Amino acid sequence: MIKTDILIIGAGPTGLFTVFEAGLLKLKCHLIDALPQPGGQCSEIYPKKPIYDIPAYPEILAGDLTDKLLEQCKQFEPGFTLGERAETIEKQEDGSFIVTTNKGTKHQAPVVAIAGGLGSFEPRKPLIHNITSFEDKGVEYIIKDPEIYRNKRVVIAGGGDSALDWSIFLSDVASEVTLIHRRNEFRGHLDSVEKVQELKNKGKINLITPAEVTGIVGDHKVDGVVIKESDNIHIDKEYVLETDHFIPLFGLSPKLGPIANWGLEIEKNAIKVNNALDYQTNIPGIFAIGDVNTYPGKLKLILCGFHEATLMCQAAYQIINPGKKYVLKYTTVSGIDGFDGTRKEAPKAVVKSIQ
Amino acid sequence: MIKTDILIIGAGPTGLFTVFEAGLLKLKCHLIDALPQPGGQCSEIYPKKPIYDIPAYPEILAGDLTDKLLEQCKQFEPGFTLGERAETIEKQEDGSFIVTTNKGTKHQAPVVAIAGGLGSFEPRKPLIHNITSFEDKGVEYIIKDPEIYRNKRVVIAGGGDSALDWSIFLSDVASEVTLIHRRNEFRGHLDSVEKVQELKNKGKINLITPAEVTGIVGDHKVDGVVIKESDNIHIDKEYVLETDHFIPLFGLSPKLGPIANWGLEIEKNAIKVNNALDYQTNIPGIFAIGDVNTYPGKLKLILCGFHEATLMCQAAYQIINPGKKYVLKYTTVSGIDGFDGTRKEAPKAVVKSIQ
Ligand SMILES: Cc1cc2nc3c(=O)[nH]c(=O)nc-3n(C[C@H](O)[C@H](O)[C@H](O)COP(=O)(O)OP(=O)(O)OC[C@H]3O[C@@H](n4cnc5c(N)ncnc54)[C@H](O)[C@@H]3O)c2cc1C
Ligand SMILES: Cc1cc2nc3c(=O)[nH]c(=O)nc-3n(C[C@H](O)[C@H](O)[C@H](O)COP(=O)(O)OP(=O)(O)OC[C@H]3O[C@@H](n4cnc5c(N)ncnc54)[C@H](O)[C@@H]3O)c2cc1C
Repeated sequence: MIKTDILIIGAGPTGLFTVFEAGLLKLKCHLIDALPQPGGQCSEIYPKKPIYDIPAYPEILAGDLTDKLLEQCKQFEPGFTLGERAETIEKQEDGSFIVTTNKGTKHQAPVVAIAGGLGSFEPRKPLIHNITSFEDKGVEYIIKDPEIYRNKRVVIAGGGDSALDWSIFLSDVASEVTLIHRRNEFRGHLDSVEKVQELKNKGKINLITPAEVTGIVGDHKVDGVVIKESDNIHIDKEYVLETDHFIPLFGLSPKLGPIANWGLEIEKNAIKVNNALDYQTNIPGIFAIGDVNTYPGKLKLILCGFHEATLMCQAAYQIINPGKKYVLKYTTVSGIDGFDGTRKEAPKAVVKSIQ
Repeated sequence: MIKTDILIIGAGPTGLFTVFEAGLLKLKCHLIDALPQPGGQCSEIYPKKPIYDIPAYPEILAGDLTDKLLEQCKQFEPGFTLGERAETIEKQEDGSFIVTTNKGTKHQAPVVAIAGGLGSFEPRKPLIHNITSFEDKGVEYIIKDPEIYRNKRVVIAGGGDSALDWSIFLSDVASEVTLIHRRNEFRGHLDSVEKVQELKNKGKINLITPAEVTGIVGDHKVDGVVIKESDNIHIDKEYVLETDHFIPLFGLSPKLGPIANWGLEIEKNAIKVNNALDYQTNIPGIFAIGDVNTYPGKLKLILCGFHEATLMCQAAYQIINPGKKYVLKYTTVSGIDGFDGTRKEAPKAVVKSIQ
């Protein structure tokens, strides 16, 4: 059982900034995310794109924003359960909550902050009748640890940035990379498209287009995929390509999923909160912040999640320290004491005579 | 008469970010501030100190924060009335407001956003009986344009960072700089104290301590100041030092001031707003955002002002464009069109075949 002060569901920008604000109040956080990495939409959907409306950043790449938020909260040593989906919640007699993931990992905390964005990111799966029986046996929809592909044969399917970027990355790791797409055209960053062209010319990526994977063959694990290839005059040929892994990268789509059944008031696929006070839901002790919540005038913007997280932490403090009064301190004035023993502080003014 | 869409009172971080958010909605802003420079508390009180809780900035100097906010809103060409205090407000028949400053400058807008922080910064004045009659006749409490001191004799009084830093700066501009303080000890950044010591040793700053200015002499303008100096055994001597300017830098203290009489609901020296919706005050069309407002759970933090400004701009849009529906667009997706003709936009994905 993982125990913490604030259990945060969702490690997007809102969840990450919550760790920092909670840390200022000496509260510890643990984050659960279905994705293998933190950053939410910013790291999953548009890491290389610039955002222009983060206050005081005239421009910042979404991936860099994630890095900065991680750096800022590092002192407060957040725990992470990544690649798992929060599935169920149970209220305990002592008022705390136990949240269990789809892999059975259990977490306990007096306060739960749902920062789940548009929902848990779930892969779009290709329509191949026997694909589910090969999941985690050679079929992966999300690349968690590229090392498992070292010196293995890999077939990637897809026509967007993920397919391009992972083909490039794995061309140095796997023994063989085949990229399959149902068109000749790819849609992505110019750099990525050009790099794949270059690696193809060098024979480091096999390209099969226009083509589709229509089946998987293998006993207990993937041994090969069935490829249906069209030549230019639309005559199809179908054959088996041997491979150790099949990685369809057709994008991830967010689903509110299990959280929708937690007894929370839901409106327009989002969780209703009390924005006049502390972003608490209809269940005391459970808060919803960032894109996942709704209230009159709600804007699904990153900067709004930051504010909501900050006010929410004050309410969490009251729940965790009943009766204790919290006095706001400016970080500039009091500095920051990390849970890791580090301290940040402004250079003090000196009082010194001039002779 | 200066006309604009949103008239912002206060050019602190909240006011500056409002310009940006309004610009995204194609609304133009004009800012009034009692200080000669934008930045509010950040530029007036602690420009060289680090802030640690600006989201995604593990550390940023308050002065740099101001610079970044100015850079971010530059595309939307804000107008500025600086060094003037907003004094009165009058509602017009067409629903718009006219705001007049202490210097008589008039501004008209359909929406007024009060981002006045702790209030308009007013100088702490020394207790010298005839000082007011010399204001703007050689006595200045705030340095607006250092060039007016070129080749003039200047007496600065004070023992903090402002007195130290302006003495250093003016030692290269004025013909003679005298720094007077009632103690031998100064309180400020170590660098500044050491630099003054160095300039004193070189004869570029005259230092008179412990001493006080007790009177001003002159006909229509300052000709000299009366100095009361104590030596180490506490025998005082009093004499006149000839000078062109006397600049007492005893700090600025914020005063809600005239705004308190605008008919707004005030609580704990702050303006009550409807935080459940759009940060509007009890007077429709007048909003209060940032440190100047209050509501249940309010935190006087910079990041909260950013959020409040953003939601407020949506409501301003509705007032200015009645009946028009606003659809939120991500800056990443739509880019930004500045009022100055510049455009920011993310590099587009390409659709390109790989052969
Ligand atoms: C293309 C694009 C451009 C954008 N441009 C801008 C912009 O310019 N400015 C701006 O402010 N915003 C922009 N946004 C929106 C911005 O990305 C979101 O507002 C922001 O990511 C919300 O942060 P969040 O932390 O609330 O949620 P998210 O970033 O969505 O993160 C939520 C996380 O929670 C996880 N999660 C959800 N449910 C569960 C569960 N049950 N178990 C485990 N994990 C779960 C998800 O996997 C996800 O990682 C853009 C979005 C997109 C897609
Ligand atoms: C030493 C110190 C350290 C701080 N540290 C932090 C920190 O670490 N983190 C954090 O988030 N916050 C911190 N703060 C608070 C932060 O500076 C404020 O929250 C922030 O400045 C508020 O911004 P604002 O734009 O709302 O108001 P302000 O910055 O106060 O700006 C308001 C402006 O309005 C002007 N004004 C008011 N009335 C009038 C009028 N009638 N006419 C003309 N002009 C007027 C004023 O002159 C002023 O320039 C700190 C403050 C101080 C003093």
